[in-house]
Amino acid sequence: MSTPDGGTDLHLDLPAGGARRTALAQALRDAVRSGRLAPGTRLPPYRTLAADLGLARNAVADAYAELVAEGWFTARQGSGTRVAEGAATAAAPSAATAPSSASPLHDLLQGKPDPASFPRSAWAASARRSLAAAPTEAFGPGDPRGRPELRRALAAYLSRARGVRTAPDNIVVCSGFANGLRLLASVRPRDWAVEAYGLPFHHGILESAGVRAHPVPVDEDGAVTTHLPARARTLLLTPAHQFPTGSRLLPARRAAAVDWARNTAGVIVEDDYDGEFRYDRKPVGAVQGLAPGHVVYAGSLSKSLSPAMRLGWLVLPDHLVDQVLAAKGLRESWASALDQLALADFIECGAYDRHVRRMRKRYHQRHDQVLSVLAAQAPHLRVTGIAAGFHAVLELPPGREAPALAAARAAGLALDGLSAYRHPAAPHPPREGLVIGYAALPDGAFARALHALSEVIRRVATP
Amino acid sequence: MSTPDGGTDLHLDLPAGGARRTALAQALRDAVRSGRLAPGTRLPPYRTLAADLGLARNAVADAYAELVAEGWFTARQGSGTRVAEGAATAAAPSAATAPSSASPLHDLLQGKPDPASFPRSAWAASARRSLAAAPTEAFGPGDPRGRPELRRALAAYLSRARGVRTAPDNIVVCSGFANGLRLLASVRPRDWAVEAYGLPFHHGILESAGVRAHPVPVDEDGAVTTHLPARARTLLLTPAHQFPTGSRLLPARRAAAVDWARNTAGVIVEDDYDGEFRYDRKPVGAVQGLAPGHVVYAGSLSKSLSPAMRLGWLVLPDHLVDQVLAAKGLRESWASALDQLALADFIECGAYDRHVRRMRKRYHQRHDQVLSVLAAQAPHLRVTGIAAGFHAVLELPPGREAPALAAARAAGLALDGLSAYRHPAAPHPPREGLVIGYAALPDGAFARALHALSEVIRRVATP
Repeated sequence: MSTPDGGTDLHLDLPAGGARRTALAQALRDAVRSGRLAPGTRLPPYRTLAADLGLARNAVADAYAELVAEGWFTARQGSGTRVAEGAATAAAPSAATAPSSASPLHDLLQGKPDPASFPRSAWAASARRSLAAAPTEAFGPGDPRGRPELRRALAAYLSRARGVRTAPDNIVVCSGFANGLRLLASVRPRDWAVEAYGLPFHHGILESAGVRAHPVPVDEDGAVTTHLPARARTLLLTPAHQFPTGSRLLPARRAAAVDWARNTAGVIVEDDYDGEFRYDRKPVGAVQGLAPGHVVYAGSLSKSLSPAMRLGWLVLPDHLVDQVLAAKGLRESWASALDQLALADFIECGAYDRHVRRMRKRYHQRHDQVLSVLAAQAPHLRVTGIAAGFHAVLELPPGREAPALAAARAAGLALDGLSAYRHPAAPHPPREGLVIGYAALPDGAFARALHALSEVIRRVATP
Repeated sequence: MSTPDGGTDLHLDLPAGGARRTALAQALRDAVRSGRLAPGTRLPPYRTLAADLGLARNAVADAYAELVAEGWFTARQGSGTRVAEGAATAAAPSAATAPSSASPLHDLLQGKPDPASFPRSAWAASARRSLAAAPTEAFGPGDPRGRPELRRALAAYLSRARGVRTAPDNIVVCSGFANGLRLLASVRPRDWAVEAYGLPFHHGILESAGVRAHPVPVDEDGAVTTHLPARARTLLLTPAHQFPTGSRLLPARRAAAVDWARNTAGVIVEDDYDGEFRYDRKPVGAVQGLAPGHVVYAGSLSKSLSPAMRLGWLVLPDHLVDQVLAAKGLRESWASALDQLALADFIECGAYDRHVRRMRKRYHQRHDQVLSVLAAQAPHLRVTGIAAGFHAVLELPPGREAPALAAARAAGLALDGLSAYRHPAAPHPPREGLVIGYAALPDGAFARALHALSEVIRRVATP
């Protein structure tokens, strides 16, 4: 783990899924307790550990603060955070079983669809049918492009549902968006324009691939594509629903992005992570449809169905197909052929559309529930963005995010601050707010989480 | 595609789902038009093609009848269905396309299990059961170690079948051996000892990960582990069945490797790629069982069941678990959770054992078939290695490999020469020979391939 400014190397093992900040704090305690982190050791900077673990920087900062508060760490201006002298012995006398209060009661972290809504029977039927109908060669080594059945089904579906214009031969199946982004980073020139707000995990992927990222400001009309960094040849966008601030890209800015790509031989990478989930109107089609020769459209199952299959796809302009396939390699890294066959059937028999419709209704209700709670508790605050996706952003005045997060943590809420999603190279001051994921919890737990959240907001967000 | 009673090989690419009969008819027309099916060629029997394509036999019969009616095919009692004389030119005037006669008739490339033997019903049953029984969180983001159900099933199976001593927490599921090797390359020191013969693909993975490879000679008793390169801290071995030369690692050399690891704090990476398939005796247990703290045991489904799922596993010593997980990353790269759950069920219900037993018997017969043909055609040449796995190596005198490969190519045979597997840094002169994969072809095609091979050998390998 890299520590450019002098902190120790630190390998931590965190579970995926909810409660990662809590898990990080626990892992740090364990590391001190076991002696892996000796007294006096300087911890890695927040951003380093955050990038390594794929966490928001704030999550790491909070975990550090928590351990300072508990006496495990000391923090001094200018010398960073260190393991406290005598921490291991003092702080962990017996307590073997440990802080059960550590795991959050209410998981409102963004990015997760509802796992309980997975359509088990419909998927099982598709799996059974597609397994019986599969040609023999499907059980052999396989095509790095992905199964032709799936690429055909995707080309038709994406055309119909997202206005994507493509052919099966321009689609490369990959194991999720991150896998696709890494492939693209390896074939595109070094300078990328990225939205000033995005997933730190994605920023980290680009950074470790050697990409020089140039943040583009994001406002209520999406990324400001009218003035793009001169050196950039690739532009990473979330046009349907800016992540995480929630705006949609203004038509004029879509056009500006496409003009930029045409004039500079540039490529737009369109991350359509939740494009099917718009609640106030019919979803707007993909930018890809405007300029198939200049846009890579990237999608995945991780939001629309489940991240469990590790299935995603890149829709590529002709000139990138061979490059991406060469980067992918011929002998590995393609996703499960059985899941691909099942998904092709699942799309073609209409089950995918039915699932998306069902979830759109469910998430729409959740979205409205969040809005009404926020409107009641904090009418002076603003929820940004369009009615879409899996999370809402409650903007906070400067200086209010940190106390709000601390109060949320104290109330057993797991959620992120907006500032954690700001690209570290973005020049503008961070916007503050709460990013509230509303898709994953079961109804009862969600109601309780919303109640706890509303209490927190009432207390800390009152002017 | 199997044609036990004399029909041609026929590889067709049909869409999944509805209208497959129509698609088959179209694919057959295309095959004739492009010249892939030459006039006079006998078509495979209905039941063979139906089994290969996963279609009802009737659907194939109907498609044949349709093409007979259209004049593409002729059908005569007792001589089966054949491509009509003049069909291609008559029916496809322009025919600008394709020297498709370039593709080999007989695929004897090593490394592929029999795709037609994939146990569709048993796998479908496991998939259905495991999907119904899965906990809700299985449809969420998932654990980078892999599903706990699978790690438990693997720990028990590998102990029983391969003598591996481990616990579920020491297993990390990955997407095949190559993925695992890349992870290991990123966490181990730079100097590796590798067998002087191995898969060039693996050599390439190590090289691009910055590994400095030190080739270790390989002889009839496996890798010469009694004298290992001084700087190496990691040793990549195929102890059960040296790849591709076919020897098993002598017990004294197993012990020497383990001593080396203990004395140098070194790590052995045991690639057990076909460990379940030994035909002359019960398989010898894994080296890992001798020293679980010093051996990474690596296995996958790619040989024992199918490469279609992209599923493999690393069994790690305690001190490597966190490092490998950190290299893997917390947010991606784990294999399909649904396939993992299905495999756990498949192992636990005994279906995996049954499949391995069935395939062992089948591949054993194939192995003996190859040996008898080679013994008859080239009694003066030696087939090296033990009776195991998916390929045999026919050693050739110096200077004979290149002409043999040329003759094989001319006869429509696809297979590799032994010298292609030599590590480029190996000091010793290359050994020459033919590497003959015998697992993948259907019976009829295999018989024809063996016949073609024996002709080639008779001509070029005569002293």
